[in-house]
Amino acid sequence: MPPQPSLPEPAHPDVDSMLSRKFGKEVANYFSGSPLNRVGFLRPDHAFLSSAIHHPSTTFLLFNNLEPLVKSGTEIAHCTFGDIKSVIGENPFAESESDTIAQYNSSLYLPQIIFLGLDEKKEGFRYKEHYKGQPWFAVDVTPKESVKAECEKLIEKLKGEGLEFSKGRMHLSLPAQEAAIYAEARHLLDWNARNPFCASCGYKTLSVNAGFKRTCPPKDIAHEINQGERPPCATRTGISNICFPRTDPTVIMAVVSADGQKILLGRQKRWPPYWYSTLAGFLEPAESVEEAVRREVWEESGIHLGRVVIHSTQPWPYPANLMIGAVGQAIPDGEEIHLGHDAELEDAKWFTAEEVREALRVGTSGLGEGAGPEYKEGGLRLPPKTAIANQLMTAVVNGFASGSPMI
Amino acid sequence: MPPQPSLPEPAHPDVDSMLSRKFGKEVANYFSGSPLNRVGFLRPDHAFLSSAIHHPSTTFLLFNNLEPLVKSGTEIAHCTFGDIKSVIGENPFAESESDTIAQYNSSLYLPQIIFLGLDEKKEGFRYKEHYKGQPWFAVDVTPKESVKAECEKLIEKLKGEGLEFSKGRMHLSLPAQEAAIYAEARHLLDWNARNPFCASCGYKTLSVNAGFKRTCPPKDIAHEINQGERPPCATRTGISNICFPRTDPTVIMAVVSADGQKILLGRQKRWPPYWYSTLAGFLEPAESVEEAVRREVWEESGIHLGRVVIHSTQPWPYPANLMIGAVGQAIPDGEEIHLGHDAELEDAKWFTAEEVREALRVGTSGLGEGAGPEYKEGGLRLPPKTAIANQLMTAVVNGFASGSPMI
Repeated sequence: MPPQPSLPEPAHPDVDSMLSRKFGKEVANYFSGSPLNRVGFLRPDHAFLSSAIHHPSTTFLLFNNLEPLVKSGTEIAHCTFGDIKSVIGENPFAESESDTIAQYNSSLYLPQIIFLGLDEKKEGFRYKEHYKGQPWFAVDVTPKESVKAECEKLIEKLKGEGLEFSKGRMHLSLPAQEAAIYAEARHLLDWNARNPFCASCGYKTLSVNAGFKRTCPPKDIAHEINQGERPPCATRTGISNICFPRTDPTVIMAVVSADGQKILLGRQKRWPPYWYSTLAGFLEPAESVEEAVRREVWEESGIHLGRVVIHSTQPWPYPANLMIGAVGQAIPDGEEIHLGHDAELEDAKWFTAEEVREALRVGTSGLGEGAGPEYKEGGLRLPPKTAIANQLMTAVVNGFASGSPMI
Repeated sequence: MPPQPSLPEPAHPDVDSMLSRKFGKEVANYFSGSPLNRVGFLRPDHAFLSSAIHHPSTTFLLFNNLEPLVKSGTEIAHCTFGDIKSVIGENPFAESESDTIAQYNSSLYLPQIIFLGLDEKKEGFRYKEHYKGQPWFAVDVTPKESVKAECEKLIEKLKGEGLEFSKGRMHLSLPAQEAAIYAEARHLLDWNARNPFCASCGYKTLSVNAGFKRTCPPKDIAHEINQGERPPCATRTGISNICFPRTDPTVIMAVVSADGQKILLGRQKRWPPYWYSTLAGFLEPAESVEEAVRREVWEESGIHLGRVVIHSTQPWPYPANLMIGAVGQAIPDGEEIHLGHDAELEDAKWFTAEEVREALRVGTSGLGEGAGPEYKEGGLRLPPKTAIANQLMTAVVNGFASGSPMI
């Protein structure tokens, strides 16, 4: 098996609580476990942001077209305010949020900045009585518009120092805590880049709340007609969800047979030979998670589920998913596989617990990688520990559904 | 206690599976439990939709500005194709989806139609080998644009029959299965109405997939410049989440003290006196549910949680939420209440299990209603059974966290 990064530690593993005695240790999946306190209620406070962005301990993660700056291929690179000052200016948070909105000019390009949070384990920065730690920011340095030349210059300099923007998905190489921070930055940079216009009125929007909100300003000084006044927009009266980052709930489920002895897995055509995984899909409007699990399993495999139990969850920043992991059990007369409804899968199949357990031992890897040395051609291949699919299958063979290990 | 509607039956309650023996009966919350099979993979198939919309068994739910047509105040009213033909025309699905997109004309107003699914318990309509039942649609008959006069006429006629559009939130009056169908219709009508423009390019979008997708057509015959050709849009290359309905994951949690004897509840200023509920908030980008629960509880109350367990989920169509219900346990030195971080709550307080159990018995009601006859002024008031908050508190006093009832 190729080397795989560690998973995050569950929160407070040292606390022996009634919940942990009854339900066992919490499963913390990859991309969760961030060490940062996001202090989200301070995002609209420009005095806080101005002070945080200039503190000597503050660290900046840079992205170029959503690719993070890394060193040695597998480690997030850290930059200073001095590094990126030429791109973002002396103080991007000099004005209050209401002043920034009042002076909105859609013809100005402002590189996206995200305030990620405070690492409270690090000394240094303090704000008011309760908030301290090392501030973390992410900055988009994609060379474009008015900052094209400055970004290109900066990127050349960073390359000279041996740093590079990582092309692939980062999820097979980062330490757990860095992966969680990277996921936060990527999700928010992507959301801002993907939504430059207001879905309610079609006009351009402005990033506020340090990257966690997009607002539709009532005036745009780039518009000469009507003194820049824009038509009314529904998002300006009351709170609208479309101003806030989007996260798409998805369900992913290990399906157990009615007798508890078999596990259902499926495969997509584009996957390597012998590779299978748990079924998954997007939750639809006005479905509970439990209903979405039953619907997806029926659509993709024809199988009818009874009881569904939620196991754990995983953020997945490609681009904006929340994976909700569940275990479901087929009803006795609902186990026949039918692939003809949705036709998303090339195959779906019942595997014995023994086959799955052996494949978890010798056949896991990232999608683009070869299996480990003990793997024998023709054997089942499965996703790595960093995927919640792997954690769900592991839970099932270890007795999550039945109370005792399945083999 | 005022009369409260029933909750949906859990799926397949008759199946005694290993999962139900280990985890107990599934909790099905209000707004879940829809009897419809959505057969979502048939939504792009205009032959299916044309045939379903014209079947004599087909039923139509009407909405005016998101308010559903009801009879006797508490029951969804059903209409026929004949009733709404004047508004939606002879066959809104006459053309294939690709032809509809090719002929896009942004100056035409098309009343929103949603295909909700098939009620498979009803005989009648059949499509191909596997799909049968009564088709359900929702139609927006808000009087506006080109159908203003026809909608007004229809509404007058319906009023003459004693029907009306319900002004309040429906969630305190509908039978469980109707509530779930209403939630599906409302969520999708709201999403379509809220997103008429493309967030990626700012141009108008077109509803396709029977209301479950909005696409950004490459041409608009209402535009005279450049033969109607529009600029390139990122949503046209590959799949973009912004073309699909949005659902916002939220967390809601019963918090138990470290010794398991107390339950934390909070109240907002605008609530009636003595009214408390569980804490709740939106999940943020790149958080697991478990992390979001810990963050929200700390932000709103200052309390630090260890183990978090997910209990059940509830769709909430105001406008587009998925409530993910959890139980979390405070760590021993993290129980001190501090309201100063986010300042969303007027108060947060530890209650004994006994107080909560008594309030669940005598003090629950809808927000606008009075408590029941046994309630004594000054006692704790709580949300009704239809709210997942009530189900979480009930689970806790019945021993969810500890294995045995708390009093």
